[in-house]
Amino acid sequence: MTQPFIGKYSDRRPDTSPVWKRLEEHSQSIVHSDLREMFERDPQRFARFSLANGDLLVDYSKNLITDETLHLLLELAREAGIESAREAMFGGGRINWTENRAVLHVALRRRAEGALFLEDHDIMPDVRRVLERMRKFCHDLRSGLIRGASGKKIGAVVNIGIGGSDLGPVMISEALRHYQNGPTLRFVSNVDATDFVEKTRDLKPEETLFIVASKTFTTQETMTNARTARQWLFEGLKDWSAVSKHFVALSTNSDAVREFGIPAERQFEFWDWVGGRFSSWSAIGLSIAIGIGFDRFEELLDGAFEMDEHFRHQPLEENIPVILALLGIWYRNFLGAATQAILPYDQYLHRFAAYFQQADMESNGKRVDRDGEILEYDSGPVLWGEAGTNGQHAFFQLIHQGTQLIPCDFIGFVHSLNPVGDHHRKLMANFLAQTEALMRGRRPGEIGDDCPDELRPHKVFPGNRPTTSILLDRLTPRSLGKLIAMYEHKIFVEGVIWRINSFDQWGVELGKELAKKILPEAEALASGANPDLSRHDSSTAALMRRIFAPDGDEERG
Amino acid sequence: MTQPFIGKYSDRRPDTSPVWKRLEEHSQSIVHSDLREMFERDPQRFARFSLANGDLLVDYSKNLITDETLHLLLELAREAGIESAREAMFGGGRINWTENRAVLHVALRRRAEGALFLEDHDIMPDVRRVLERMRKFCHDLRSGLIRGASGKKIGAVVNIGIGGSDLGPVMISEALRHYQNGPTLRFVSNVDATDFVEKTRDLKPEETLFIVASKTFTTQETMTNARTARQWLFEGLKDWSAVSKHFVALSTNSDAVREFGIPAERQFEFWDWVGGRFSSWSAIGLSIAIGIGFDRFEELLDGAFEMDEHFRHQPLEENIPVILALLGIWYRNFLGAATQAILPYDQYLHRFAAYFQQADMESNGKRVDRDGEILEYDSGPVLWGEAGTNGQHAFFQLIHQGTQLIPCDFIGFVHSLNPVGDHHRKLMANFLAQTEALMRGRRPGEIGDDCPDELRPHKVFPGNRPTTSILLDRLTPRSLGKLIAMYEHKIFVEGVIWRINSFDQWGVELGKELAKKILPEAEALASGANPDLSRHDSSTAALMRRIFAPDGDEERG
Repeated sequence: MTQPFIGKYSDRRPDTSPVWKRLEEHSQSIVHSDLREMFERDPQRFARFSLANGDLLVDYSKNLITDETLHLLLELAREAGIESAREAMFGGGRINWTENRAVLHVALRRRAEGALFLEDHDIMPDVRRVLERMRKFCHDLRSGLIRGASGKKIGAVVNIGIGGSDLGPVMISEALRHYQNGPTLRFVSNVDATDFVEKTRDLKPEETLFIVASKTFTTQETMTNARTARQWLFEGLKDWSAVSKHFVALSTNSDAVREFGIPAERQFEFWDWVGGRFSSWSAIGLSIAIGIGFDRFEELLDGAFEMDEHFRHQPLEENIPVILALLGIWYRNFLGAATQAILPYDQYLHRFAAYFQQADMESNGKRVDRDGEILEYDSGPVLWGEAGTNGQHAFFQLIHQGTQLIPCDFIGFVHSLNPVGDHHRKLMANFLAQTEALMRGRRPGEIGDDCPDELRPHKVFPGNRPTTSILLDRLTPRSLGKLIAMYEHKIFVEGVIWRINSFDQWGVELGKELAKKILPEAEALASGANPDLSRHDSSTAALMRRIFAPDGDEERG
Repeated sequence: MTQPFIGKYSDRRPDTSPVWKRLEEHSQSIVHSDLREMFERDPQRFARFSLANGDLLVDYSKNLITDETLHLLLELAREAGIESAREAMFGGGRINWTENRAVLHVALRRRAEGALFLEDHDIMPDVRRVLERMRKFCHDLRSGLIRGASGKKIGAVVNIGIGGSDLGPVMISEALRHYQNGPTLRFVSNVDATDFVEKTRDLKPEETLFIVASKTFTTQETMTNARTARQWLFEGLKDWSAVSKHFVALSTNSDAVREFGIPAERQFEFWDWVGGRFSSWSAIGLSIAIGIGFDRFEELLDGAFEMDEHFRHQPLEENIPVILALLGIWYRNFLGAATQAILPYDQYLHRFAAYFQQADMESNGKRVDRDGEILEYDSGPVLWGEAGTNGQHAFFQLIHQGTQLIPCDFIGFVHSLNPVGDHHRKLMANFLAQTEALMRGRRPGEIGDDCPDELRPHKVFPGNRPTTSILLDRLTPRSLGKLIAMYEHKIFVEGVIWRINSFDQWGVELGKELAKKILPEAEALASGANPDLSRHDSSTAALMRRIFAPDGDEERG
């Protein structure tokens, strides 16, 4: 905390700025406006409210905005100091000020020559060195140069991690399943043993490699699963020394890695300036690279770097992440939206929303600003979603006809990776029809005369429900990298405007602490003792007595 | 619409009732109250605010309620006519009044003797007959009496359905994976061909059975996938007649089933009083039964029936679904919660929240009441969640320290199905620690003196965040059935209080209609024609031109 207070780009709370008040007033006129009419009045609306970068098209014209809205929001962004914040991030400023850390996931995918100094240390040689080690490991593992203890080729790789050490690798590996040509990939995260048991049920120990992904190498879930994996390996191979051939560590804690039995050459490091939820670009992405090969992994980095360059250099009004962030602020703070839906029309992206649930909610689910003051305005929304068209048959009813405003991002691709018949045409016809229906609605006068009077109100759609259409040519590692980086920067911009630290996560600490206190009490209860539970409320104490009663499975298991 | 207006149990809009105003006033005192203090003042709080039914324990003591809250909410429930609504449902009243249908998923699991009349027709013989046909089919398929066209045993069953014909079978089959001892199960839902291609990549046509699940047998996604499956089968077996041996239909449309090539004995029917999102108990559950065996499927029905009996006969104040519904109303309408999180601490339940996302949001995402009036109060929330402990490392930050109130249901089991070391103890210690942390919070005075001043505000947890703990002995078909039925009835009760029809889904129609109109335009564009797109807004038209340009995959595929 001795560093200059780099997290503070503007002295002013956003809600005390005149532009905030003007946005509040402006929102009153917007809620009475009509998107359908706006399109009718202005044939250029699509052209004016869309942005492109390479094959990425972001069409935000079906949002509840006018030129005035954007003008005011951009003023808010400038007042918040977005431009200096952006430079501070790319320049290695310690913008994660509560942990006194830089935020440099952009360095991991910086596909450019030259140095990037964090204070007086050029971090690029470190980045490149680890990437080269990953490349060699991927190559050797995929080609069979690296083998298991018994000499068998590795046929399955199990990534053990949780949160940022799991969701990225899972989401990206699923998204790029079309490109998978390496060993079978599995992901174990939950401390519930079911996760480990089910994911390893059909694997052979002598052909299995475990990747233990934990920055600190102390994460409770990950280390519990890692120890169970080590035991499982031993039971299969009857040889503790096999651990060194069947485990890899992604961690910064060399001592703990060595103690676990993993040799130094099997440890891949990253740095304190890589936040967990932005770490798929680092060694944490090793499982991704093993699955698709290192060249493809680098394409993922290339795509992210393209977006980094766009974000860093484009003026705010033509800057895709900035515009998306301003739409987020608009709906959250001025139109009362509590949630944001992400709806990828591609089955490969079925975990995309779950991934950004972490990236967004852990980053911006904060209540204290840069001055330590409690926010008097809302910060991050609940982010949720499932793949389309499935969502249409699940929760779209509420988006169309419910009582709350839910801004939706529709994500789609011009070309399918699996062209079969007219499936893709139908998929994208649905994508378009939904965005059109949500915008237009259906008015009472547009319902057929044959509809009984009692039914008519139920067949009305209010419309005016905002969507952003995000279109790419084809789902490739490059386009995926670009898409992920786009949302990362959106989250960052929102956090700057909200004056919060998007890069810490103090809110996860208390539960961890209390769980550690409960564990010895649980052990006492399970062993038949009668520990003093009076420090707990009556609910927690009663549940503990029931759950940890001595006849529990752990004793029998 | 000639039936008596059975959907209307009370003449009064809830928000015009004096008790609604009293709840509004009462909510002002509750927002300034403190759960921690409430527990300290009242050692009996857990005992008073928890309910049990068999091994199911619902502890709602960590909610922001007092005796007064419950008293007022129960008055609201009685005024809404919950008791008569409940009898109308169980008695076969046409409570889905916009479609003039009864709502009798409870009949599907009515494990009792005697008749159940829908008007003058006893439907129980129909229910029992289809169940017996399902039992025989499951037995014959699992034992190898039923085989593929070439005489090979069926090794894989692929359910093709979407929405209610997919989410229930997926969720329940995943939840009961521990009990799976039948053929491999796969589920194809998305019209994106990726779903079909990836799910069938490793299957052999001669050993694969497809179940086509569509009430009308016209659902666009399902029929597109079914035709692709038929083609895939033909390409493998070179014999169109094999369709009759490799397809089963779950549908009410006999003509369309026959035309597709599926013989009558391979069609399993259900009825118009089974809503899609409540249909897993019907023939739609065939894939579940094939996976775990019919006896286990019946245990699922048994568990649901236990909850049905509880819900039907218990007084409102001791009625689990009623209490859960009232908590839902409390948070939604009086404390401003826009969302509800469901957090199962069991990896097998990883799709549980996705399932109830449909069941809840499609049921209660409505804006028009029984009189056709637009609601002046909020209806259904956004429902979301992931399995714990994973969620703790993803979005719990926002639940603990974000700016919005998110009521959370924690679901757990006393015993694990996979007891390994101390995994389960750690899992449940986390469950308890989270509910305790969310309730208690951490006050400024409870932060260690060594914490720098600038950091202290970030380490404060406001607490007072409500959770309900739902505990069962063990994840079995019976306990799962009970749990699902509990939430089904909760959704129903909320809908009655909101005066909406929880059983229709008019909000899905407009998108479907527009997609059908876009499809021929898309075909024209893809063939190089220049159709008139002037009926579309500039955004939709521009996206269409880009997506359906003639060089698209469909032409090359």
